[in-house]
Amino acid sequence: MTAATTDDTAMMRRALALAAHGPEADANPRVGCVLVDPEGEVVAAGWHHGAGTPHAEAEALEAAGERAAGTTAYVTLEPCNHVGRTPSCAKALYAAGVRRVVYAQTDPNPVAAGGAAWLRRKGVQVEAGVLAEEALALNPTWTHLVTTGRPWVTWKLATTLDGRSAAADGTSQWITGEEARADVHEQRARCGAILVGTGTALSDDPQLTARRPDGTLYPDQPIRVVMGERDLPDTARVLDDAAPTWHVRTRDPKDVLAALAEAGVHHVWLEGGPTVAAALMAAGLVDEIIAYVAPVLLGRGRPSVSDLGITTMDHALRLEPTDITLIGHDVRITAALREI
Amino acid sequence: MTAATTDDTAMMRRALALAAHGPEADANPRVGCVLVDPEGEVVAAGWHHGAGTPHAEAEALEAAGERAAGTTAYVTLEPCNHVGRTPSCAKALYAAGVRRVVYAQTDPNPVAAGGAAWLRRKGVQVEAGVLAEEALALNPTWTHLVTTGRPWVTWKLATTLDGRSAAADGTSQWITGEEARADVHEQRARCGAILVGTGTALSDDPQLTARRPDGTLYPDQPIRVVMGERDLPDTARVLDDAAPTWHVRTRDPKDVLAALAEAGVHHVWLEGGPTVAAALMAAGLVDEIIAYVAPVLLGRGRPSVSDLGITTMDHALRLEPTDITLIGHDVRITAALREI
Repeated sequence: MTAATTDDTAMMRRALALAAHGPEADANPRVGCVLVDPEGEVVAAGWHHGAGTPHAEAEALEAAGERAAGTTAYVTLEPCNHVGRTPSCAKALYAAGVRRVVYAQTDPNPVAAGGAAWLRRKGVQVEAGVLAEEALALNPTWTHLVTTGRPWVTWKLATTLDGRSAAADGTSQWITGEEARADVHEQRARCGAILVGTGTALSDDPQLTARRPDGTLYPDQPIRVVMGERDLPDTARVLDDAAPTWHVRTRDPKDVLAALAEAGVHHVWLEGGPTVAAALMAAGLVDEIIAYVAPVLLGRGRPSVSDLGITTMDHALRLEPTDITLIGHDVRITAALREI
Repeated sequence: MTAATTDDTAMMRRALALAAHGPEADANPRVGCVLVDPEGEVVAAGWHHGAGTPHAEAEALEAAGERAAGTTAYVTLEPCNHVGRTPSCAKALYAAGVRRVVYAQTDPNPVAAGGAAWLRRKGVQVEAGVLAEEALALNPTWTHLVTTGRPWVTWKLATTLDGRSAAADGTSQWITGEEARADVHEQRARCGAILVGTGTALSDDPQLTARRPDGTLYPDQPIRVVMGERDLPDTARVLDDAAPTWHVRTRDPKDVLAALAEAGVHHVWLEGGPTVAAALMAAGLVDEIIAYVAPVLLGRGRPSVSDLGITTMDHALRLEPTDITLIGHDVRITAALREI
């Protein structure tokens, strides 16, 4: 194995940029591939367009045809070693005569991993870990699903500065501003599922789609998941045909997340209500909170977070902020849950 | 009147930089002055070191001596026209033979204003408003006091992300981290007074001084103001000799702010508790909130803000964020109150 060169890094950046074109909420990771001849010229490139379509390597090899022979392949994820809906990429690269493979993230999927070892056994030069962090950042929730077996859960909160989600008389429109509400829809569109309880579905009758400010739907809609044993009326907006909907008749969030994992959903957007959110928190299934904090004071009203069974400061749930952004007049705080 | 030149702006920047050396919490504004001869050379400069010391112009004129004749004076605030603890600066500049005066902020103080008009009547060239906004930013709370007759009140809140200031069992140490607590002390040191109610003084026995992380006191301590009719025990820490303390035996915050205004205090740091804060809010006397939002969830516990008499969203108090900063793990949100 030789060390990565400046050129390797530059070419990997091109592969990463291509990968970013892929669909973020797809069951498969976003991957890019660039084939470069010994003179340093790009022969062909490709990226993965989503489950059921060719892998990035396959797309690049197809475009290169015979010119693939003798090239170096830059791939953002270790080429797979299993035959799924598409042939093994490791084999395809070898068969096409690629003489060197440089990849970023090691495949965390035990079923698909092993491509690098297989290629090395076939005498192909392999470099691992070039811009690995950048590649991981393309697919953090997919990586989480593959390594832990459960989707990454982001709990969305909207709260006044003093922790209220509605005034004393129950009015809550609007705590946050237009820009923050548009951001919520943008975040929804990046997830594979939106999760609420039957309580929220029945009381608020939300549509739970990801919409642009002009009201049109984003092209890819997350699955609308309503958990709980109560029936939903046929007229519930969440049952319209704007997006797929699952009504999972359970109170155990583990069952819901297992079903979503099975369907390849790696990022769940949890919108509540309080019972469902508390159930996921209690079960340790929330990974991150995105709180839209409105610079608004109410003094009293409905608390934005309900009882979590915490009675003393030493047991408080402490999070690690990873981003703070002013969105319109509201402050968006993204924070990861951490063990103390 | 001729237009300001690039040189005027450059020299005013020097005067502004000097002004910033002045004491922020002092009863007088921070002012800088630079005297420049016709060749563009700086002859002398000065800044105001606080009430009871010479004004910036006087300090610069004293340093220049006879070389002041024929110079242009750059002053960050309109030269005063009244004889207070020091002679009128307008007269002193004229008497020293200064031929041109360029100033930034117009004196908002009706007692001291009129210096520019007086100088013009004497035949001195006067330019107003050069970098006026920058000059105002040096003394925003002093300007507020002079124009409204009452100090600028900053209400400091510390809250969990879900609006709690203590857990259900009353424990509250610590909601925010070390860095945020150090920032609170730094902010206190920039104010003329720290205001709490007797309730807080009795229940928490705070020292209410401005201390560095190593425990030493900042050189200038704000006045510790305890408002309310209840007696304080002689052993109360707020009565120690680390800083001056006023016990104002009233429940009307207007009286307290009037007494502070009389003493030249233009920036009050309101630390609570809930009763006093609500009284100031209800009276429309809070100008700004600095909230330290800890990425912590408690679910229940003591609300960080108590009843403000608001029952419906339309009456919610909406603020305008002017700054958001991550301080350690906590988010500091500075927001001004605004009328809707």
